[in-house]
Amino acid sequence: MKKVLDKINAPADLKVLQLDELVLLAKELRAFIIDVVATKEGHLGASLGVVELTIAIHYVFNTPTDKLIWDVGHQAYGHKILTGRRSRFHTNRQLNGISGFPKMDESEYDAFGTGHSSTSISAILGMALASQLNKSDNTQHVAVIGDASIASGMAFEALNHLGETNTNVLVILNDNTIGIDPSVGALKKYLTNVKKGTAKEENIFECLNLTYSGPVDGHNLPLLITELERLKTVDGPKLLHVITTKGKGLKQAEKDQVTYHAPGKFNAKTGEREHKPLAPEPPKFQDVFGKTIIELAEKNEQIVGITPAMPTGSSLKYMMEKMPDRAFDVGIAEQHAVTLAAGMASNGLIPFCNIYSTFVQRGYDQIIHDVAIQNIPVVFCLDRAGLVGEDGTTHHGIYDIAFLRCIPNMIVFSPLDEVELRNIMYTAQKGLKQPIAIRYPRGRGYKIDWQQPMEQITIGSSVCLKQGSKTAVLSFGPIGNTVKQAIAAANHPAKIGHFNMRFAKPLDTQALDAIFKNYEQVVTVEDGCIIGGFGSAVLEYANSKGFKTKIKQFGVPDNTIGHGTIKELHDICGISWEQIKNYLDQTN
Amino acid sequence: MKKVLDKINAPADLKVLQLDELVLLAKELRAFIIDVVATKEGHLGASLGVVELTIAIHYVFNTPTDKLIWDVGHQAYGHKILTGRRSRFHTNRQLNGISGFPKMDESEYDAFGTGHSSTSISAILGMALASQLNKSDNTQHVAVIGDASIASGMAFEALNHLGETNTNVLVILNDNTIGIDPSVGALKKYLTNVKKGTAKEENIFECLNLTYSGPVDGHNLPLLITELERLKTVDGPKLLHVITTKGKGLKQAEKDQVTYHAPGKFNAKTGEREHKPLAPEPPKFQDVFGKTIIELAEKNEQIVGITPAMPTGSSLKYMMEKMPDRAFDVGIAEQHAVTLAAGMASNGLIPFCNIYSTFVQRGYDQIIHDVAIQNIPVVFCLDRAGLVGEDGTTHHGIYDIAFLRCIPNMIVFSPLDEVELRNIMYTAQKGLKQPIAIRYPRGRGYKIDWQQPMEQITIGSSVCLKQGSKTAVLSFGPIGNTVKQAIAAANHPAKIGHFNMRFAKPLDTQALDAIFKNYEQVVTVEDGCIIGGFGSAVLEYANSKGFKTKIKQFGVPDNTIGHGTIKELHDICGISWEQIKNYLDQTN
Repeated sequence: MKKVLDKINAPADLKVLQLDELVLLAKELRAFIIDVVATKEGHLGASLGVVELTIAIHYVFNTPTDKLIWDVGHQAYGHKILTGRRSRFHTNRQLNGISGFPKMDESEYDAFGTGHSSTSISAILGMALASQLNKSDNTQHVAVIGDASIASGMAFEALNHLGETNTNVLVILNDNTIGIDPSVGALKKYLTNVKKGTAKEENIFECLNLTYSGPVDGHNLPLLITELERLKTVDGPKLLHVITTKGKGLKQAEKDQVTYHAPGKFNAKTGEREHKPLAPEPPKFQDVFGKTIIELAEKNEQIVGITPAMPTGSSLKYMMEKMPDRAFDVGIAEQHAVTLAAGMASNGLIPFCNIYSTFVQRGYDQIIHDVAIQNIPVVFCLDRAGLVGEDGTTHHGIYDIAFLRCIPNMIVFSPLDEVELRNIMYTAQKGLKQPIAIRYPRGRGYKIDWQQPMEQITIGSSVCLKQGSKTAVLSFGPIGNTVKQAIAAANHPAKIGHFNMRFAKPLDTQALDAIFKNYEQVVTVEDGCIIGGFGSAVLEYANSKGFKTKIKQFGVPDNTIGHGTIKELHDICGISWEQIKNYLDQTN
Repeated sequence: MKKVLDKINAPADLKVLQLDELVLLAKELRAFIIDVVATKEGHLGASLGVVELTIAIHYVFNTPTDKLIWDVGHQAYGHKILTGRRSRFHTNRQLNGISGFPKMDESEYDAFGTGHSSTSISAILGMALASQLNKSDNTQHVAVIGDASIASGMAFEALNHLGETNTNVLVILNDNTIGIDPSVGALKKYLTNVKKGTAKEENIFECLNLTYSGPVDGHNLPLLITELERLKTVDGPKLLHVITTKGKGLKQAEKDQVTYHAPGKFNAKTGEREHKPLAPEPPKFQDVFGKTIIELAEKNEQIVGITPAMPTGSSLKYMMEKMPDRAFDVGIAEQHAVTLAAGMASNGLIPFCNIYSTFVQRGYDQIIHDVAIQNIPVVFCLDRAGLVGEDGTTHHGIYDIAFLRCIPNMIVFSPLDEVELRNIMYTAQKGLKQPIAIRYPRGRGYKIDWQQPMEQITIGSSVCLKQGSKTAVLSFGPIGNTVKQAIAAANHPAKIGHFNMRFAKPLDTQALDAIFKNYEQVVTVEDGCIIGGFGSAVLEYANSKGFKTKIKQFGVPDNTIGHGTIKELHDICGISWEQIKNYLDQTN
């Protein structure tokens, strides 16, 4: 028998269904998501949690005329499947496939692209104000946002504005008490009280002048439909509090919500995750961070760790377990995380503030204003730097070298490998008097035997990995391993020198002076934007000293880069080992 | 008779005073601030409003052992005067004088430097957690924050964290219903209800798990002292709601709080502001923006204006008065402002989002994530770009060229003068399909007759202001007028060409190709950081095309730059006309 789901090619197809068919559809949609994600990987738990909500919204509202924004977008798989992308869903997060996040240029049903959290209320309010000005008074505007995301400052700013407008905006608070890791903060405790009925009369959203309704069971489809239909007739800004279970419908995903946020491959029937090969593998960079900070903190009492809502992703969770009073998950609050670290450091602690490169964009002003211009020695550990692969455009950490290098007092470092990451962490807590940003990539390193005794690194020093005669390749960070591969495969490796520069700031000017004197050509390689990046630092220095050597810059070009494997994206950016090799062959 | 104030060289001197002496001190302190600011200029209203609070805090708490942070810092003049800087207070905001904001390297009583708003709760919490870890359990931690600043997202993030700690933190909410302009937003309305007693039982701060007390009259010194003494004995995080009047004690300042935020010179006795000379002056750049947007909006119905809490400073207030439904003050909420604009633009409007260059650092992630990578045509008008003078380190808008230029799709423009500002605003609303950042400086322009008919500017086009034979000077923005002066005074002006480049991105590559072919030397001049800035864009282009011409970069060096007149700071940075002339003389 043909499934209900097979008949849904657009939300209009939902509207002719009976309630029992909609309930059946929810079951089929959930099974479809599980089946595809089990083999193709991706974000699982969030989408399973909002299956009923997704159907209810598309049943009640008239998308794409009515505007719908999914905050973060991890939970939008059901939405994608119901809005014409069912047959392409198996290409999710793959090169040339659909994106794992809503994307405006992918579908007219994706009213606004998301990826970073807490943007949806601002964007939907902007749309609603536009509708109001353009007299589109019947247009409905809906943002779905989780309880972890709504606690971020940006969402509060938007609610504070929303509450004084008379726009037709519905904020749906998808309260599952978890982001990627469990939600934290006073607001979370408060929401728990609201759900238990132990909060006092007026709730916090009513304080902000929103019409509050709920909490309602987010897995009760008839109830959701009734409530959304009712809210369609309520004027002005309103908030519906919906309670859902992340991972709903897959037992393991409900039980281990953190792991099943993005579980990798698993058995669609049993839910069991595939076991990893038993052969030893190099560690993930995040685990090198997570384990090294404990090693250091055991000896240095002033060390503390901070993560804005990424205990698992950053591996700070190990320290949170072992030293709970010295490791802080502050929620989705990058701005606060940075200035909190500055306050701690100004009162004697040595904070390691771990933020994904792409998310540190949220704390940029705080890095300049609260840390760097006061020259406070905060240690920033920027995970997921460079191209991150399947998460795509919104998540690449490719601007950090450019936007950090221009800030006074800031050291910008990237390790070649796990050992250098450990050594710079060791160095950073040993009396460093200025802030440092340590950027390292997503994924695994290069060394099984990475737990070497730690050594101090001289700030601004580079390492010559290989001498050459004609061309000097200057690499910044782990992409130096790609360079190694390129040189090993090149036609004339003897001609090619390789320098692991490590510091984009301060540059090793002594080494650079020698390189510019001794080589005919300089090549810079980095896993970040060419504009203003590491290569440009080398360029600025060479020009200031009057060196005329041609400098070839390899890096991320000035385009938006989509999703795919990291290798595929490196190819697209022209920074794969083959492309570097080709260039070296042509010029040597 | 010797004044009480004359005996106060440190907070310890307060503690021996009787209550009636403290009340007298408040009067004297207020008069002292008025006297000095009347002739030396500076921020007036905020400090007048917290005279009693300042005395009470220093009387009750044991600074600098107890930590005290003034959010923003406009209100910290009394604090500075009572903490050993009375005799230097007349040097406020002048070169080599004291800063207009708290500064860690200026006094041990300035526990944390401020300038940008809403940082104080994060920083004080960081300090309190450090005290807790280091068993300094008796240390008190106090942050004073205004009602406009506490509504900013960053402050909410900090409160959300604070409420789940058991730290010894006192947040003093200085509620005067105004920032620089009147406060806005749902929270402001809510606080009004709290003050009137019409809010319901549990207030919003209690929802966030803080011990709330107040509201108390912030001008009743005995009451403040009693309440602070009581709160010293209350464990855990707490918030004291204090009601003050901005400008308290100077009639005009109480009446016209916006003007007397920073009134310029005025008569200390009468409060009357000095009249400006009657001769016509070129307009302020902000007024060129403020008046031109109305001209454009009258013809183009899709244009809207956005300011995060700077209606007066940006001159968007004119549009807010004339077209109240199309001009939005969203409060101190730069993150929200940017994404709101993106939402509006994605639904058909043409938003001009006006943010000071230094504050747009707060919206950096939103510019990348919500605007640029989606290629949404938001028009950013970045006022106060470049060195801003007396506001100093925290307020210079000198990183914007570097941090915006590395973002895909973003146009980065700076006008030479008022006419170019108008023309680019005209261009931006005429079907531009990508985002643009228009940066212009604080202060006045150059032209009395600036209201010329507007003309479209070709994106990426430069203007040759003067041909030369040997040296080409490439200037970006209004600093081109400094360059004009330098060339006019140079020994061999005929040798020197001058190009007003206007676009740091996209560069006018056609013009650059000709320049590099025809000139022996290229000089770049900009009012922003050298690292990664406009000059580096020229450098990257020249290198990519194999031009070997020496490029000399003039710009802001890689240091923190303090306060002084803009001319003095240009001297310090080496970008005054005399310094450019000297270089041109030496090399021509």
